[in-house]
Amino acid sequence: MQKDVYQQSLDLHELRKGKIELASKVKLDSKEALSLAYTPGVAEVSRKVAEDPQAAYKYTLKNNTIAVVSDGSAILGLGNLGALAAIPVMEGKAAIFKEFAGVDAFPICLDTQDTEEIIKAVKQIAPVFGGINLEDIAAPRCFEIEKRLREELDIPVMHDDQWGTATVNLAGLINALKLAGLEKDQAVVVINGVGSAGVATARLFDHYGIKNLIFCDSQGIIHANRDNLTPEKLELINASTAKVSEGGLADALRGANVFIGMSKPGLLTAEMVKSMATRPIIFALSNPVPEIMPDEALAAGAFIVATGRSDFANQLNNSLAFPGIFKGMLESRARQFEIGMFVAVAEALAGMVNNPTTDKILPTMFEPGVADTVANAIKKSV
Amino acid sequence: MQKDVYQQSLDLHELRKGKIELASKVKLDSKEALSLAYTPGVAEVSRKVAEDPQAAYKYTLKNNTIAVVSDGSAILGLGNLGALAAIPVMEGKAAIFKEFAGVDAFPICLDTQDTEEIIKAVKQIAPVFGGINLEDIAAPRCFEIEKRLREELDIPVMHDDQWGTATVNLAGLINALKLAGLEKDQAVVVINGVGSAGVATARLFDHYGIKNLIFCDSQGIIHANRDNLTPEKLELINASTAKVSEGGLADALRGANVFIGMSKPGLLTAEMVKSMATRPIIFALSNPVPEIMPDEALAAGAFIVATGRSDFANQLNNSLAFPGIFKGMLESRARQFEIGMFVAVAEALAGMVNNPTTDKILPTMFEPGVADTVANAIKKSV
Repeated sequence: MQKDVYQQSLDLHELRKGKIELASKVKLDSKEALSLAYTPGVAEVSRKVAEDPQAAYKYTLKNNTIAVVSDGSAILGLGNLGALAAIPVMEGKAAIFKEFAGVDAFPICLDTQDTEEIIKAVKQIAPVFGGINLEDIAAPRCFEIEKRLREELDIPVMHDDQWGTATVNLAGLINALKLAGLEKDQAVVVINGVGSAGVATARLFDHYGIKNLIFCDSQGIIHANRDNLTPEKLELINASTAKVSEGGLADALRGANVFIGMSKPGLLTAEMVKSMATRPIIFALSNPVPEIMPDEALAAGAFIVATGRSDFANQLNNSLAFPGIFKGMLESRARQFEIGMFVAVAEALAGMVNNPTTDKILPTMFEPGVADTVANAIKKSV
Repeated sequence: MQKDVYQQSLDLHELRKGKIELASKVKLDSKEALSLAYTPGVAEVSRKVAEDPQAAYKYTLKNNTIAVVSDGSAILGLGNLGALAAIPVMEGKAAIFKEFAGVDAFPICLDTQDTEEIIKAVKQIAPVFGGINLEDIAAPRCFEIEKRLREELDIPVMHDDQWGTATVNLAGLINALKLAGLEKDQAVVVINGVGSAGVATARLFDHYGIKNLIFCDSQGIIHANRDNLTPEKLELINASTAKVSEGGLADALRGANVFIGMSKPGLLTAEMVKSMATRPIIFALSNPVPEIMPDEALAAGAFIVATGRSDFANQLNNSLAFPGIFKGMLESRARQFEIGMFVAVAEALAGMVNNPTTDKILPTMFEPGVADTVANAIKKSV
């Protein structure tokens, strides 16, 4: 079955030779048409933009176009495969942007993995774009790149693996906690994997009011006495109210309410699920293979299981968020993101499901109005 | 009248908010469709490309997509207006690429005018693209940028202001000389303006066999005794068989057969046209305002007048060449340009007009088959 998806995907990509194309919005079927869209008429448009940079939004694709930028260093769950291998994923994102939110997105796959060079390149290509969606860039460089670009560019910059993922995780957790009868200040949440998605999820949970957070990485529970903690990891454990000890993931999960995995296939065992508090909430988001398969988790007593995949129930995919987020930013012409915007989007997404069930904690991206609901939440919080 | 074109162009750009958009080539209307175009299926495509870089041509937009790259330093005839002001022109080119040759082109307007930084940025964004069309980059940096990128990238790189322009100039001149009854080794050709277009035109004319070339710049006739000649200017006068003396454009044109202007509005006077040999051929290509208006040149005795504009007879616009040139390069997967390809294209374009007249030396870009004729000429000369 899995093999089928892969072979079918290869066949589709070979047939279509990629997934996106450019289209002209003007007919160029006469000399007159050409003299308006191109020379001599276009000279006047260039002059107007030279006089007033804001006119670029009025007269050019900058109005509705974002860059989907990757260095290929953290492609899906596959790791560092480089710029060329990032293209199919970035094209997929661009197709989703267009189909679900009408946003024009173009893949920029950079042949460098140096933090300063990435920052410089993105700044240099920025004029054409109304926003920058950073994608599949490894931690910790993704944090510095996003931070610096937000400071140095006057268009919104978002690393989707951080904020798109975090937003959808929070949206899902809002309804999952409701179903499990837990308050946000009660729940003990274990976040396994503190790369880009884990760090942003923790920051967003914290901002929302979920403070009892335990973090694990490949060396086990993260606590203050460990050596060589990154600034991000130190920040997270300092903000958390959880009492942690030394130990591994199994120790962290004992008695916990929520597992949020953004790590590696198979890391979560049935035994660990059984050791959690009643009504365990499992978000096994490693892609394409989750930390535990849903049937195994449910058999071990999980109350709610969500994954990142479209072929299981409860897909927590950032596709729910990112198209509408950029639509909202472009339409409001907001200059930069604030963390509160992502909470607003998460609440709006959670609010779209009138009666959440354990099999349906969030809308699917195919339901009408998802992107507009998200975009409106952004616009209201600008 | 001119004002009308400008206002109409502004109105069109404001209405459409730019001229190009992205389009998805895949339907994303179900979970299944999404699982093939995006996760989990796309992971296999990324793996295949990581294993074999050439697979990017098979599975991604790289197959048919080029970058239209500018630093905004030489926009049309308007000068150095910067990256933002370049967008409307680059979008126009992208629209032409798509409409006339089916080539997907995306504007990259760089916020730097430093030669080394431009080279680096283009190399860094290259993975997504099957070719690079450099555009509206000032001389002399355009020469170094094109040369270096050709050496350092494995996809075709062409500065269209050089080679697209030169190719169409040669195509037009082939038929103009025929109509005037002149052989290529007899014609005395004055090239006024030796920026990017002038230098490439001279190199292409020379390669084709037009050797009797006189060059003028803002200081007058270029001759070996002048100070501070650029390497390009030295190369040109060394290759030419013309006997030159000191003097200005008026001196250069006395008795000459052909004027090729890629300079500034109004530089060519009726008196200068009258001083030329019989059947003067005038290519007044400054854009949007030519070196002499066609009616004035004709009144002064010009045999053939061509301009860069779509609203006069004999438009010599690189739009005749560049869409088909990149179509041919992409379809043949040729790795780099050779000067002979441009001669082949010029001859093919000239050959499209069975019975050239003084009012029609070349096909218009609206005639069927132009891009395919050009693409085929490229493919035959690879």
